[in-house]
Amino acid sequence: MPYEVKSLNEECGLFGVWGSPDAAQLTYFGLHALQHRGQEGAGITANDHGVLQSERGFGLLADVFRDPSKLARLTGTAAIGHVRYTTAGNHGLENIQPLSFNFSDSQFALAHNGNLTNAVTLRRRLEMHGAIFHASSDSEILMHLVRRSPAATLTDQVKDALRQVHGGFAYLLMTNDRLFAALDPNGFRPLVVGQLPTGGYVVCSETCALDAVGAKFIQDVEPGQLLTIDDHGLKIDHYTTDTQLAICSMEYIYFARPDSDIHGVNVHSARKRMGARLAQEQPVDADIVVGVPNSSLSAATGYAEASGLPYEMGLIKNQYSSRTFIQPTQALREQGVRMKLSAVKGVVAGKRVVLIDDSIVRGTTSRRIVKLLKDAGAKSVHLRIASPPLRYPCFYGIDIQTTKELIAAQKSIPEMCETFGADSLGFLSEQGVIDAVGLKVDAPYGGLCMAYFNGDYPTPLYDYQAEYDEEIRQLQKSQSRGD
Amino acid sequence: MPYEVKSLNEECGLFGVWGSPDAAQLTYFGLHALQHRGQEGAGITANDHGVLQSERGFGLLADVFRDPSKLARLTGTAAIGHVRYTTAGNHGLENIQPLSFNFSDSQFALAHNGNLTNAVTLRRRLEMHGAIFHASSDSEILMHLVRRSPAATLTDQVKDALRQVHGGFAYLLMTNDRLFAALDPNGFRPLVVGQLPTGGYVVCSETCALDAVGAKFIQDVEPGQLLTIDDHGLKIDHYTTDTQLAICSMEYIYFARPDSDIHGVNVHSARKRMGARLAQEQPVDADIVVGVPNSSLSAATGYAEASGLPYEMGLIKNQYSSRTFIQPTQALREQGVRMKLSAVKGVVAGKRVVLIDDSIVRGTTSRRIVKLLKDAGAKSVHLRIASPPLRYPCFYGIDIQTTKELIAAQKSIPEMCETFGADSLGFLSEQGVIDAVGLKVDAPYGGLCMAYFNGDYPTPLYDYQAEYDEEIRQLQKSQSRGD
Amino acid sequence: MPYEVKSLNEECGLFGVWGSPDAAQLTYFGLHALQHRGQEGAGITANDHGVLQSERGFGLLADVFRDPSKLARLTGTAAIGHVRYTTAGNHGLENIQPLSFNFSDSQFALAHNGNLTNAVTLRRRLEMHGAIFHASSDSEILMHLVRRSPAATLTDQVKDALRQVHGGFAYLLMTNDRLFAALDPNGFRPLVVGQLPTGGYVVCSETCALDAVGAKFIQDVEPGQLLTIDDHGLKIDHYTTDTQLAICSMEYIYFARPDSDIHGVNVHSARKRMGARLAQEQPVDADIVVGVPNSSLSAATGYAEASGLPYEMGLIKNQYSSRTFIQPTQALREQGVRMKLSAVKGVVAGKRVVLIDDSIVRGTTSRRIVKLLKDAGAKSVHLRIASPPLRYPCFYGIDIQTTKELIAAQKSIPEMCETFGADSLGFLSEQGVIDAVGLKVDAPYGGLCMAYFNGDYPTPLYDYQAEYDEEIRQLQKSQSRGD
Amino acid sequence: MPYEVKSLNEECGLFGVWGSPDAAQLTYFGLHALQHRGQEGAGITANDHGVLQSERGFGLLADVFRDPSKLARLTGTAAIGHVRYTTAGNHGLENIQPLSFNFSDSQFALAHNGNLTNAVTLRRRLEMHGAIFHASSDSEILMHLVRRSPAATLTDQVKDALRQVHGGFAYLLMTNDRLFAALDPNGFRPLVVGQLPTGGYVVCSETCALDAVGAKFIQDVEPGQLLTIDDHGLKIDHYTTDTQLAICSMEYIYFARPDSDIHGVNVHSARKRMGARLAQEQPVDADIVVGVPNSSLSAATGYAEASGLPYEMGLIKNQYSSRTFIQPTQALREQGVRMKLSAVKGVVAGKRVVLIDDSIVRGTTSRRIVKLLKDAGAKSVHLRIASPPLRYPCFYGIDIQTTKELIAAQKSIPEMCETFGADSLGFLSEQGVIDAVGLKVDAPYGGLCMAYFNGDYPTPLYDYQAEYDEEIRQLQKSQSRGD
Repeated sequence: MPYEVKSLNEECGLFGVWGSPDAAQLTYFGLHALQHRGQEGAGITANDHGVLQSERGFGLLADVFRDPSKLARLTGTAAIGHVRYTTAGNHGLENIQPLSFNFSDSQFALAHNGNLTNAVTLRRRLEMHGAIFHASSDSEILMHLVRRSPAATLTDQVKDALRQVHGGFAYLLMTNDRLFAALDPNGFRPLVVGQLPTGGYVVCSETCALDAVGAKFIQDVEPGQLLTIDDHGLKIDHYTTDTQLAICSMEYIYFARPDSDIHGVNVHSARKRMGARLAQEQPVDADIVVGVPNSSLSAATGYAEASGLPYEMGLIKNQYSSRTFIQPTQALREQGVRMKLSAVKGVVAGKRVVLIDDSIVRGTTSRRIVKLLKDAGAKSVHLRIASPPLRYPCFYGIDIQTTKELIAAQKSIPEMCETFGADSLGFLSEQGVIDAVGLKVDAPYGGLCMAYFNGDYPTPLYDYQAEYDEEIRQLQKSQSRGD
Repeated sequence: MPYEVKSLNEECGLFGVWGSPDAAQLTYFGLHALQHRGQEGAGITANDHGVLQSERGFGLLADVFRDPSKLARLTGTAAIGHVRYTTAGNHGLENIQPLSFNFSDSQFALAHNGNLTNAVTLRRRLEMHGAIFHASSDSEILMHLVRRSPAATLTDQVKDALRQVHGGFAYLLMTNDRLFAALDPNGFRPLVVGQLPTGGYVVCSETCALDAVGAKFIQDVEPGQLLTIDDHGLKIDHYTTDTQLAICSMEYIYFARPDSDIHGVNVHSARKRMGARLAQEQPVDADIVVGVPNSSLSAATGYAEASGLPYEMGLIKNQYSSRTFIQPTQALREQGVRMKLSAVKGVVAGKRVVLIDDSIVRGTTSRRIVKLLKDAGAKSVHLRIASPPLRYPCFYGIDIQTTKELIAAQKSIPEMCETFGADSLGFLSEQGVIDAVGLKVDAPYGGLCMAYFNGDYPTPLYDYQAEYDEEIRQLQKSQSRGD
Repeated sequence: MPYEVKSLNEECGLFGVWGSPDAAQLTYFGLHALQHRGQEGAGITANDHGVLQSERGFGLLADVFRDPSKLARLTGTAAIGHVRYTTAGNHGLENIQPLSFNFSDSQFALAHNGNLTNAVTLRRRLEMHGAIFHASSDSEILMHLVRRSPAATLTDQVKDALRQVHGGFAYLLMTNDRLFAALDPNGFRPLVVGQLPTGGYVVCSETCALDAVGAKFIQDVEPGQLLTIDDHGLKIDHYTTDTQLAICSMEYIYFARPDSDIHGVNVHSARKRMGARLAQEQPVDADIVVGVPNSSLSAATGYAEASGLPYEMGLIKNQYSSRTFIQPTQALREQGVRMKLSAVKGVVAGKRVVLIDDSIVRGTTSRRIVKLLKDAGAKSVHLRIASPPLRYPCFYGIDIQTTKELIAAQKSIPEMCETFGADSLGFLSEQGVIDAVGLKVDAPYGGLCMAYFNGDYPTPLYDYQAEYDEEIRQLQKSQSRGD
Repeated sequence: MPYEVKSLNEECGLFGVWGSPDAAQLTYFGLHALQHRGQEGAGITANDHGVLQSERGFGLLADVFRDPSKLARLTGTAAIGHVRYTTAGNHGLENIQPLSFNFSDSQFALAHNGNLTNAVTLRRRLEMHGAIFHASSDSEILMHLVRRSPAATLTDQVKDALRQVHGGFAYLLMTNDRLFAALDPNGFRPLVVGQLPTGGYVVCSETCALDAVGAKFIQDVEPGQLLTIDDHGLKIDHYTTDTQLAICSMEYIYFARPDSDIHGVNVHSARKRMGARLAQEQPVDADIVVGVPNSSLSAATGYAEASGLPYEMGLIKNQYSSRTFIQPTQALREQGVRMKLSAVKGVVAGKRVVLIDDSIVRGTTSRRIVKLLKDAGAKSVHLRIASPPLRYPCFYGIDIQTTKELIAAQKSIPEMCETFGADSLGFLSEQGVIDAVGLKVDAPYGGLCMAYFNGDYPTPLYDYQAEYDEEIRQLQKSQSRGD
C-alpha cells in the first residue's frame, strides 16, 4: 500500500456496479478498498431508474461522505465511483470524478483512470469546432468524442471515440440504461469484472474491491475490450484487436494492494518473490532484515526467508499520521521531532541491518530512514530496493512526468548510496521483476511496462514526444557534466 | 498498537514538558505518539509565564488541533497534555483533560491516567463538606483533596492528597510555577521521565513519546514517587514508601507501542518472546503463521521463528478504516462486505494456518477472522493467543469492569474454540507472560499485575468490592449451570 | 428588501469591477450590498494578469467566504461576482456562478441575471451539433453561442450570440483581457455602471452596490447595450437597436433596495409614492398605519402621510430569523409559537389598523399577519397592498412560473379578503404603479413590464408559449367552475 | 433592538419552562426571541424525569443548535436556557450557561443575568474554605453558597444564598424536581412569569418571549421574590422584604425589544414618548427626521410626530451584516466601502436632517453616520439623543465598567458635537426619561436606575468601590486639565 511520504502517486481507483439495490453503498465500500489509489477526492454517481445523481468532494471517501444523508440520497440499482489523486493545477471541484454530463435527452457519468498521450491535440481540435471544456483534466475528452461521433448507435459512438484516444486509460461510462467499461490497447492499468452473489455485476480497478463487496471474480478486462452491462447482463466486446499487454510494473511493485490479484498473479506473492530474488542478486552479510512499513513488508519477508536472516520489526509507522495537520518546524525536526516513523531501538541497536524498500523516487525518505536507524544504534544499514532504479517519466497515469524528480536519473548508484548515508545500496534487476511477476504472456518484458526503468515506451508519445526529447537532452547534458 | 475492532481500551496517555520555548508543540507531537492510548478526546494546557491556557476537544488530536491557530495560542515554556478514551456516560466536554482550575490566586491543570478504587467514597465525603464537582470522572477528586489539605506547603498538600486516593493513577499536575508528576504505589500505569537536548524535562506515559520529541530517557517513574519540575530542574521525591510494583501486564501484551521500553523491557521484544513461548506451549502442525494486524505481528513473528514455520501476510488491514463513518448494514455484511480486514487468498488458500492474536476480549473479532480465512480457502485455522484468558475485571484503568463482556469468563476453552469455528485454540500460560516480560524485580508475578487473568488484585478493591463479589457470585452461578 | 417568508424570489445579483488592486474585495462588498437579490449561492472570479481564479459555494456570501483565505486567493485587478437564488432542480454546485470556462488558449467567466425564453430550443440545437452542457441552468448557452460564432473578432462573436438569446438577461462576461456587460433589448433587469475614485469601472445590478464600494454612478445600462471595459477604459456600444424599455415593475415594488436608484428613480421614494397613491385609491377610516417589516415600510409611511393617520411600529421582525434552522412543529405553531414576526400589543390593542404590504403572492403570510394583529387585540385589520394583484407568471427572471402559486389568479378580491380574515382588502391600480414610478420614457406602461398583473408580455414567449397557453386554459376552467 | 456597531452589551437573556412535553423546543423559541440580549453563546438544559442534560455552544442560538439532533436529545418536560454576551476574558466554553452541577445525589442547572458587586469577596472566602471554581464568571458563586448553607431545606438554603449575594441578578436554578427563579432586591434586570395554554409555567427575561411561545403573562417578578415551580404549580415567595425597585433605565432606552412590556410599560411606546419629549426639549428647524436603524426607529417616529416633521427612511441597514466575516481594510473604508449602513441619497440630499439615536457610548458610530448623511448630500445634520449622556460605569450587568469608554464622560456636549461633525447636538433630560417611562411606583427616579447618567448607585458598590473611586479621581483630573 502506498506509503504517504513517497512522492509517487497513482491517479485513480474505479468502481462500478449494475444490478444491486445497494448500488451506491457497494460503491462506497468498493472505493474504500481502493482508497490507496487516490486520497484527494472521491465521488459516486448513482442511477435510479435512469436518473443520475452525484455526490463529490475533496479528501478521503469517508470525509466526502461523512454526512450519511449524502449516501442515502444516491438511490438506485447502479452506480459508478472514483477516488482520485489530484495532480498539480487540477484543484477545482469540477475535476473530481465521476464527471456528470446532462443532455436534454440523456445523462452520462464518466470515470477515468490513466493519462492520455494525445489529449492536447484532441482538445485543441475539439475546441476549434466549438467544444467547451469545464474540467482541466483529460477525462472529459472522451465524452466530446462520443457526442460528435457520426456512428449510428451509442455503442458504435463509444468505440469510435475509444479508437481516437491514446495512452493509458480505464474508463467507466454510465448512461441512463447501461454501464460501459473499457481498457486501453496496452492494458496499462488494471481493471477486473466480477459478479455479486445476488447477480449484479461489478467492474473495478483491483480484485481487493471485489472481495470487499463479496463479489466473485470473473476475469481481468483485457486490452482493447469494451464491456457493456445492462439489465440483460454482461456483454464482452472489443473496440480494437490491435493490442499488446504492457501492464504497469509499478502496480505489482508498489501501487496495488497486496491482497489483489492482477492477471492471475497475487501482488503480495509477487512482492515476496521480488524480495527473494533481491536476496539472491544483492546479498548482504548482516544480522536482521527490516522493511519500510507498510509497502515493503512483503518484499522484506521474502528477502528474509531467502537469505535466512531473521525478519524484524525495526521500524514502526504511526497509524494516525495521515490525519495530522500540524507539522514540526525545521528547528523541531532537527531536534528529533518525528511524526510518522520511529525506529525500535531494542531491535536495531548494535545490529547490521538490511533495509528493504520497494522503490526510490526522490530519495528523501531513504535518507531519513537510514539516519533514523543509525540514530537508534544500527551498526550498519544496507539498503536494498526491490525494483530497478526509476530513471524515466511515465505518461500513462503515474504522477512522474519529469526526470528532475527522480534521483536515479540524476545520480549513479554509488552517489545515491553516499547521499543516503547507507553502507551499501543494491537494486533488483529488470529481469528480476519480470521473473518475480511471472505473467504467462508472450509479450515484451513478460507483458509488463518497464518504461520508467529503461525508457522503452510501448506506444508513441504523441503530445509528450517533444518534451520527452528535451528532458532526455537535458539529462544527458547533466550526466556528461557529472563525469 | 490497539486494533480498533477490539473492545479493550486504555483510558489515557499523558505528556508534560517544562522548560522549552516550543512546549505546546512538543506536547502535540508527544501526544501524537501516544494517540494509541486514547482516541476520543485530547487537550493541551500551556503555561506562559505563570498564565495557563487550554484547548480541548473531542476526537483525535489532529481533529482537535485542525485549526493551527489553536496550537499557536498556547504560548509558553511548559505544557501538559492528555489523550483520552471516553468511558460510557462521560461524554461531556468537561471530562476532556487536562482539567483546568482557576483560583483567585492561582491556576492548576490536571491530567490523569488510571482509575481510583475509592472515588465514590471520597466524592461523597467531599460533597458533604460543600465540594462541587463539575466533571463526572474521578480525576478532579485530587484537586479537591489538595485544596482542602491542612498541610503548610503545596508540595505537602499534594503528598497528603496522593496518600488519600487509591487504585491506579499516574498524575500530571501543573501550576503556575511547577509541574508535579506522581505514580500510584503499585505503578499500575507506565510513566517515564526524560530530558530534551535543550535542557528541559519531559514526563510521559511511554518512551515512544520521548523518542518522538528527541528527548533522552532518564528513568521510569517508580511506584510512590512524586516528581517536581520547575525552573530549578527536576527533583525526585516520594509521597509513600509502602510500594510494590505491579505494572499492568496488558501494557506489554497489547496497549503500549512496540517501540516503547517499560521498566527496561522493549515491548516488541517482549511480544516476540511471548510468541516464541506460545510456540513451545501450544505447538501446531501447520503450514504458515499469520498474525492479526497490527497488534499481533510481533507475537506472530516470534511464533514463526520458534516453530520454524514461515511467517506470512495472510491478513491485510485497510489503513483508512478508522476514518470511516458509514458501516455496512447487516444484510451487506452477510453478503460479504468488509471494511477493515481482508484475507490474502493467494497466501492462505489451501494452507493450514496458525493464527496469532494477542488477546481475546469478547471474541467477536476472533470469530470473524477465522471465517475470513476459511472463506479465503484456508484448510484449517489454529488460533493461538499470546496471553492467558481474560477472566476478571480491571479496576485500575482498563475499560473492562464486568465479566459479562469477557468470553473467557463465560465459556471454557473448547466452547470458545467451537464458537470461533477454529480447528484448535490455545493460550499462553501466566508463567509464559511473566517469563517473556522478564522484569528483574522481586515481586509477586515478576512485578506484573495479572489480576484480569487470575483475580489476584494487588490492592483492596474498596468501593468496587461489593460489585465484584456480586459479579463473581453471578459468574459462579452461570458456570455451575453450564456444567 | 425581500422578506423571507414571501415566496417571491429574484434570481440574481451581479457585480463586476475592472481596474482596482482590491478587485475581489470590492466585489465581495458589492455583492454583500446585493445579497437581497439571492441568498442561496455566491461566487467570485478574479483576474490576475489574465489568469482567472474562482471561489463559489452555497449559502450567503459571508458563509461562502467565511474562511478569509478564500478571498485572499483571489488576487488581481479585475473580478466579477454573483449572488444567486437557486430555482428548483438546480441544486448542484456547477450552477453557482460565475461559470468558468477554460479553453486551451483562453478563459472566460460568465455571470447572468434573468431568464431566457428560447433556452430549450437553443440548447437542443447546440447539443445536436455536439455541445456538452454542464450546468442545468440557461446561463451557459451564451458561451456556446460565442464559441460557435463565425464572426471574426471576439466582440462580434459576443454580439452575434447576444442576438440569438431572447428573454430577460443581464450578462457579465470576463475574459483574460476585458469585461463585457450586456442587457436584453427590453432592459427587464436593472444594470448600472459607475467609476471608482481610483479610476476603475464597476458594473452591477443596483446603485446601492456602487455606493457600497464608494463608486460614482455613470449611467444605467440601456436596453441592447454592450459595454466593454479593459485597460483602455470603458466603451459603450450596442448589439441591437431594436429595443423598448420594459423594466420589471417588481424591482420598484419589492426586489430592489430602497436606497437604489433605477433609471433615475429612487426606489424608496417610488414606494412611498405608491403608498400615498394607495391611500387615495383605497382610503380607510382607521386609527393607525402599520407596515409589514421590512419591505413595506416605505409604502406604509407614504400611506400614513397621505392619509394623515399615525404611522406605528405594530409589527416587529426578529432580526435573527434568517439564521434559524429549527422550525416550530404544527402543534407548536397552533399553540402560538412564532419565530419571525410579532405584534406589539401595546400599539395595536383596541386599534383599527391599516396594514400595508407591498404585494401578495401565495397569501399565506397575509393570513398569518392578520391573525397576529387580531390576536394582539386589533379591533379591525384593513389590508392594503401597494401593487396590483399578481395574476400571471413571469418568464424574465422572477421565480413565479405557474399561476397555481398565485392566490390572486385563483380567487377574487372578496374571496381573498375572507381567506385572510381581513376586514377589508384593497390593491393599488396599475396606473397607480406607473404614475408612482414615473419614468420619463415614451413606452407602453411608462417603460415598465406589468405582465404579472395584466398578462401583456413585452416579447414573444417562445419555448414557454405552449405551457402558458395550457396554464391560462386551466385557469379559465377553474375560474368558470368557481362562478 | 441592539445595533451591532454599538459597544453596549446586555449580558444575558433567560428562559425557563416547567410542565410542557415540548420544554426544550419552547426554550429554543423563547431564547430566539431573546437573542438580542446576547449573541455570543447559548445553552439549554432539559429535565427528563429528574435527569438533567445540556447542550451549549458559542455563537447564535441557531448556530449552536444547527444540528437538529442536539435539540432532539434534550427530552423532558422542563428546561432552562440562556443566551449570553461574553465579556472579555471569559471565552471558555465553561462560561456558557446554564452551568451544570452534578452531585452524587442530585443535579443542578443554573442560569444568571446580571453582575454581582461582592463576587470577589465571596469567591475568595469560599476558596479559603476549599471551594473550587471552574468558570471565571460570577455565576457559580450561588451554587457554592447553596451547598454550604446550614439551612435544613433546599428552599431555605437557596434563600440563605440569595441573601449573601449583592448587586444585579436574575437567577434560574433548576434541580431534579423543581425550578427556582429569583430577582435581586432592586429588580435591576427584568424577569416575568407566564402560563402556557396547556398549563405549564414560563419564567423569562422579557414578555416578548412569553408571546413567542404563546404563554399568557401573569406578573413581573418583583424585587426580592423567589418563585418555585414544580409539578404542584407555581409558588411565589420572597427571600427578603428589604427591597426598592430600581430597574435599569437602559432596558427601556435600548436593550429590551420594542414589543416587550416591563412593569406594565410597553417599550416601543416608552421610546416613542422619549422621542416626543426630546422634540420638546431639543427642537430643531429642519426638513426631515431620520432614525438610526433599528434601535432608534421608535424614538424617531415619536420625534417626528411631536415636531410635525416628516419621518423618513434616510438610512438603510443591511440585514445581512451580522453574518459578515470579512471587513473592509482601512484603505477601503476611506474609499467609501461600507458594510452595514447606507444613506438614501434620494431622501437626504439637500435636506436638513434631524438624526435620532437612542444613546451614545463611544461615539464612533455617531461620527460615521453623520459623515454618511453629509456624503449623501444632507445640508445639515442635527443629532438628537433620546437619553441623557452616559457618564458613569454600570456594575449591575451592562458591559460598561470604565468611563474611559464613554465619550460623554470625557468630553462636553459642544466637544462631542464637534467630534461628530454634527450641526447641533442635544440629549434628553433625566426627568424626560423618567416621565416617558412613567412607572407608577413611589421610588427614587420613578423606580429606574439612572446611575450611568448621574452616578447615583442604588446599592453600595462593595468590591467595585475602590476602582470606582479611582476611576472618578482620574476622570476629575482629566476634566480639570480639560478646562
